[in-house]
Amino acid sequence: MKIDGKPFRSIWRDDAGEVRIIDQRWLPHELRIVPLDSREDFATAIRDMWVRGAPLIGATAAYGVACQMRRDASDAALSETWEILHATRPTAINLRWALDEMDRVLRPLPPGDRAAAAFRRADEIAEEDVEINRRIGENGLALIREIAAAKPDGAPVNILTHCNAGWPATVDWGTATSPIYHAMEAGIAVHVFVDETRPRNQGAQLTAWELNSAGVPHSLIVDNAGGHLMQHGEVDLVIVGTDRTTARGDVCNKIGTYLKALAAKANDVPFYVALPSPTIDWTVTDGLREIPIEERDGAEITHVQGRDDQGRITTVQISPDGTEGRNPAFDVTPAELVTGLITERGICSANADAMAQMFGDLKNAAQDRRHGG
Amino acid sequence: MKIDGKPFRSIWRDDAGEVRIIDQRWLPHELRIVPLDSREDFATAIRDMWVRGAPLIGATAAYGVACQMRRDASDAALSETWEILHATRPTAINLRWALDEMDRVLRPLPPGDRAAAAFRRADEIAEEDVEINRRIGENGLALIREIAAAKPDGAPVNILTHCNAGWPATVDWGTATSPIYHAMEAGIAVHVFVDETRPRNQGAQLTAWELNSAGVPHSLIVDNAGGHLMQHGEVDLVIVGTDRTTARGDVCNKIGTYLKALAAKANDVPFYVALPSPTIDWTVTDGLREIPIEERDGAEITHVQGRDDQGRITTVQISPDGTEGRNPAFDVTPAELVTGLITERGICSANADAMAQMFGDLKNAAQDRRHGG
Repeated sequence: MKIDGKPFRSIWRDDAGEVRIIDQRWLPHELRIVPLDSREDFATAIRDMWVRGAPLIGATAAYGVACQMRRDASDAALSETWEILHATRPTAINLRWALDEMDRVLRPLPPGDRAAAAFRRADEIAEEDVEINRRIGENGLALIREIAAAKPDGAPVNILTHCNAGWPATVDWGTATSPIYHAMEAGIAVHVFVDETRPRNQGAQLTAWELNSAGVPHSLIVDNAGGHLMQHGEVDLVIVGTDRTTARGDVCNKIGTYLKALAAKANDVPFYVALPSPTIDWTVTDGLREIPIEERDGAEITHVQGRDDQGRITTVQISPDGTEGRNPAFDVTPAELVTGLITERGICSANADAMAQMFGDLKNAAQDRRHGG
Repeated sequence: MKIDGKPFRSIWRDDAGEVRIIDQRWLPHELRIVPLDSREDFATAIRDMWVRGAPLIGATAAYGVACQMRRDASDAALSETWEILHATRPTAINLRWALDEMDRVLRPLPPGDRAAAAFRRADEIAEEDVEINRRIGENGLALIREIAAAKPDGAPVNILTHCNAGWPATVDWGTATSPIYHAMEAGIAVHVFVDETRPRNQGAQLTAWELNSAGVPHSLIVDNAGGHLMQHGEVDLVIVGTDRTTARGDVCNKIGTYLKALAAKANDVPFYVALPSPTIDWTVTDGLREIPIEERDGAEITHVQGRDDQGRITTVQISPDGTEGRNPAFDVTPAELVTGLITERGICSANADAMAQMFGDLKNAAQDRRHGG
């Protein structure tokens, strides 16, 4: 997508073939572009959330493996890199998917061929993500079009989203935002309620920033406000992303998603999850019992980063000394609260049968891998 | 309650009879005590949230009328003061209750007698609030005791609360916190999950501060986290306050309360509202349709106040320039999500019949007033 009219992706290779990312920690206030080279660079960038969002984490990990293969393409380095990168964000299924995929491609090759093959596959993973998200946008557009058709002429379709499942969470387009960008391009009036998404404020820092950059009408709201807006008919549609979705459609996503799903159900607001198929974890069924939830540093809660009145990026403490934060980073929305999954193959009901029908090939492949295939 | 061992109230008269408050905007970082004298002082203190919380707003308004009576005790001044103070926080039912009460007491008196009578009644309103909250604590203690009895010895009762319905929201004890303080005094182990309560962070700034000052074990959480904690059995009980509750038990409280009530219902967690009877608005039944919701400045969302690493109270902007906030300050939790109301008279079911039975005298008095009695 574009920043001030110039096309950008969230990760790319420059003319010399080096990997570049936007260090998203400084958005919306500063656009900092940084190179990643060593395995430690990549691990830090993922763990400390210079990059975030399941698809982008996957692509970044793939490039991390590729860069390492230039230094040491041994079997041991391949295994170590898998372990080091996987440990950075244990909840993200795309991370494991991308690492497994790189291993699958590289392991059979002689070490001397691995670096070139790794960059080829990492580039493909990035391109595949862009194409997946473009298709998610087309499929989600149909939903928005239907809602718009039932409204008075010119009345915007009000869409609520949580966290950032926008283009900075993917390689391009975003997942939850892709239908919104496609609606804009189709001339449909939209307005987005952006949950600020504490503790890290990805809504305020990233979603508001990208919608602002693209000229999409939006309002920033606190995470507390969505239920009230739904009670009063101000939300037509919720679209969120996901870090991992189970084989029966339980959705693991940024903490607070579950509360919005409950409110949507209670107020008959359609609740959709935009979902690239690599985000589905076919090895897991019961999301609540089986998905480990990352607990992050309590300082993310007690401290908030922003720009002070001198223009400096500053962190302020909002709570008293002596108070500790408890910081689960994700929650699981049970499938029965999910109206549907917007995928690159179409819109799928959030239940095991519908998912197996639409993605039978992927499910079988996952089961083959699990059973040592 | 005590700060560093010294007893405090949130509003009091000093030895010279002048009104003093804690200017709560600087908590938890600074304890600033300020005098209030003119009607404009009082209006500013309520409107700009130097004081907040329904019971404290009521007491402050009563003292505001009293101070004005020293300057001008005419009928016109009485009416004007009602209007000016009532306009400061339209959602707070205690504000109207206190202003009506002062008017009822003062209007029949000759102007020369009004100032003394006004201070007497304002002092009584403050004392009544303390006594009400003490009784709420005793009644809520029974609930906590029952939960504690069903747990392994010494395992703490985990209580989640939203916003600040603590002693800084009342004259003393607090409403939602009063059962917690009573449980502490009774030797029952408790642990409180404190919702930070964006946008103004009353949980982080006030509830965490007062629990910290009193040595109550607590964890600060983002408003997004409560649902996840309830899904995993980490919350035994929710207790919140209310700004206005309808005759059938619909509860208007700080934005986000409704989301916690939905999560509590979905996970079989008891959801109680601590409620001084003056907070009941007998003239309103359907809270969703009838209670006007205050929309506050969007800057409360786009900007966050805290203490920077130099120890200065600083405001930082968290969102991009050009993004506007939408800021509804309260929401309404329908009665069917409320397990019960913890009142000074006992625990009452949240429905019209039970409330009329426990508070028939107050309901009749309100109806008499409404019909010109």
